[in-house]
Amino acid sequence: MENQTEISTLGEFGLIDHITENLPIHNASTKKAVGDDCAVMDYEGKKVLVSTDLLLEGVHFDLTYVPLKHLGYKSAIVNFSDLYAMNARPRQITVSLGISKRFTVEHIEQLYAGIRLACEIYGVDIVGGDTTSSRSGLVISITCIGDADEDKIVYRNGAKPTDLICVSGDLGAAYMGLQLLEREKIASAGQKDFQPDFAGKEYLVERQLKPEARRDIIDELEKAGIVPTSMMDVSDGLSSELLHLCKQSHTGCRVYEDRIPIDYQTAVMAEEIGMNLVTAAMNGGEDYELLFTVPLSDHETIKNIKGIKIIGHMTQPDMGCAMITRDGAEFPIKAQGWNPLKDAEK
Amino acid sequence: MENQTEISTLGEFGLIDHITENLPIHNASTKKAVGDDCAVMDYEGKKVLVSTDLLLEGVHFDLTYVPLKHLGYKSAIVNFSDLYAMNARPRQITVSLGISKRFTVEHIEQLYAGIRLACEIYGVDIVGGDTTSSRSGLVISITCIGDADEDKIVYRNGAKPTDLICVSGDLGAAYMGLQLLEREKIASAGQKDFQPDFAGKEYLVERQLKPEARRDIIDELEKAGIVPTSMMDVSDGLSSELLHLCKQSHTGCRVYEDRIPIDYQTAVMAEEIGMNLVTAAMNGGEDYELLFTVPLSDHETIKNIKGIKIIGHMTQPDMGCAMITRDGAEFPIKAQGWNPLKDAEK
Repeated sequence: MENQTEISTLGEFGLIDHITENLPIHNASTKKAVGDDCAVMDYEGKKVLVSTDLLLEGVHFDLTYVPLKHLGYKSAIVNFSDLYAMNARPRQITVSLGISKRFTVEHIEQLYAGIRLACEIYGVDIVGGDTTSSRSGLVISITCIGDADEDKIVYRNGAKPTDLICVSGDLGAAYMGLQLLEREKIASAGQKDFQPDFAGKEYLVERQLKPEARRDIIDELEKAGIVPTSMMDVSDGLSSELLHLCKQSHTGCRVYEDRIPIDYQTAVMAEEIGMNLVTAAMNGGEDYELLFTVPLSDHETIKNIKGIKIIGHMTQPDMGCAMITRDGAEFPIKAQGWNPLKDAEK
Repeated sequence: MENQTEISTLGEFGLIDHITENLPIHNASTKKAVGDDCAVMDYEGKKVLVSTDLLLEGVHFDLTYVPLKHLGYKSAIVNFSDLYAMNARPRQITVSLGISKRFTVEHIEQLYAGIRLACEIYGVDIVGGDTTSSRSGLVISITCIGDADEDKIVYRNGAKPTDLICVSGDLGAAYMGLQLLEREKIASAGQKDFQPDFAGKEYLVERQLKPEARRDIIDELEKAGIVPTSMMDVSDGLSSELLHLCKQSHTGCRVYEDRIPIDYQTAVMAEEIGMNLVTAAMNGGEDYELLFTVPLSDHETIKNIKGIKIIGHMTQPDMGCAMITRDGAEFPIKAQGWNPLKDAEK
C-alpha cells in the first residue's frame, strides 16, 4: 500500500476510536457497545453462552501468505463456530489486539475490515475489546457471547449408544489448503513477483484462508425440528472430536471410512503430496464443520438435509472408538489432532 | 523450584484438565463451566456486562520482578475492577493463555493459583478459556462477565455540572511501586542473591504487584443507597479518566490539588526520585481505584463513607477541565496516562 500511517500518530484511544467508528448494531440484546468499562447486554430470559479463542502470529497464522482481512474474518468465524456448536446464536464479540510496531493503521484497518465483514454476514455486534502494543507478533483474542433457549442448547455429553453420527460439509480441505500454501511459500523463497500456483485447488485455499461457520446447518436442523443429542465443531480434526463426544457422553463409536465426506480437490492434493487421504480428513483440523449425533428415529429426516452426511453411529462404551475401513477391517480411532502446545519455541 | 514438568508431557488438553481441575462454582448464574465449546450462564432478568483485558509480557509485566502468582491475581483483579466500575458484579471469567516453552507446568500452576485466589476472594467462576503455545512471551487474555440490575448500571456519561467528583483510596502508589521495582532491578543487575530493599515502601510494592478491586466501595455505596451519576476505574491515571468522564458526560471539571488522596510512602518515594508528587498521582495509573460523581445532594452521605474523598466538582462544559493548585492557580488537565501503543518494538 502507498499511504501508511504509523499507529503512534493515533495512540491507543485514537486507534480504538478509529477502528470502532460507526459500528453497526444487529441485535436487540446489545444495549451498550464500545466506549465504557464494559459492554451491556440484555438476553431476556435466554441462556447466555461464552467462548473465547486466542490466536498468535507464528503459531496460528503466518502473515507471509495470510492476508490480514482474511485473518480477521477467520478469527471471528472460529468463535461463531463455537456458538453454533452448542446450537446457540453468536450475538456479540469483544476483540483484543496486541500489535507490534511493524503494523500500520492501514494494516489494522484491513484486519478489522475482515472482522467487521464476518460480523455483518453473521449478524454479530462488536461490543468491546482491548488494544495494546506487542513486543513480538500480532496477538488476536476474541471472545464471543451468544444466546439460546435452555431446551435447545446441545452439549458434548448427550449422545446415546445407537445415535447416528453426522457431519456437515467435507473434511480435510483446510488442512490440504495449508499444505498447499506452505509448499508455495517454500517455492517462492527469494523470488520477487512469485506467482503461486493454485489452479484447480482454489477450494482448498479458500477453506484454509476464509472458512465459514455452519449457521446454515443450525438453521436447517431447526427447520426440521431436530435438536442433536450432542454436538461440537471440528476444529482439531474429526478423530479428536469424536473421542471428545464419546468420552463426555460415555459411549463408543463406529464410523465408516467410505462415509467420510471428502472433496475431490482434497483427494487430488493428498495424492500429489503422497499423504493418506483418510488420515488427512480425520486429523487435519480447521474444518469448522459440525459433528453431531441424533437419535436413530431422526434417520429419515436427517438423510434428506443437504450438506449433512451420516458417517456412523454411537455404541456402548466398552466397544471403544473405531473406524471400519472399506475392506471391513476395524482400526481404533486415535487423536492425532494438532497440539498447539507442541509448537512453541524456547 | 526443584521438580519442573515440561508442558509437552501433558499436551494442551492435559494442561487444561490439570489447571481447571476441581474449579469451584460460586454463582447460581454459572450453569456450565469449562469442558464444552462454550460456557453457559443464566442471569435471570439481570443485564449482562462484559469486559476484556489483554496482558503481554514485556509490555504489561516484567517477570524479572513479578511473581507468577501475583501476576495471575492482578490479571483477574483488573478485569473485576472494570465490572465494579459499572456498579456491576463480576461473576465469570474466561482465561486464555499463550505460553512459551520456557514455562513449565509448575509455572502455569502458580499463575493459575493467583487467578483462582482472586476468583475465590471475589466470588467469581472460571468458566472457560483457551490455551496455546506462544513463540515469544507469556500472553494473558481475560474476559470477565457480570451482572447488574438495569437501574443500577453506572456509565461514564451520566455526570451533570455541579456533581461532586469522588475517588476511593489513594493514587500514585502503584506507579511509585513500579519505579521502585525498576530501580531495584537495575541495582540487582549481574548480582547473584541480590536482596532488594523495600523497607518502608512495602505498600508501594503491594499496590503494584497485588492490587485489589474496590468491591468494598461498591458495597458501601449500595448500603448508603447511592447510585453514582458516572463512574470508571482509575487504570490509566486520574487525569486521563477525568477527561473521559467529562468528554462522555459533556461537562467540565475542577479538582483541587490539596484534595488528591496520596499515601505517605508515595510522597517519600516521589521525593527520593525527584518526581513531582501530584504529577505521579494524576498520571501514574494502575491504581484501580474508583472515580465517580454523585449529585450535590449526596454530599452529607458520601463524606461519611470511609475511603472516599471528594476531590472537586463537575462544571459546565465550556469551563474546561482544570486543577486548582494549593496557591489558587488553575492548570488545564491533560491526559498523560500511559499509552501502551507507544511501547512497542519494531
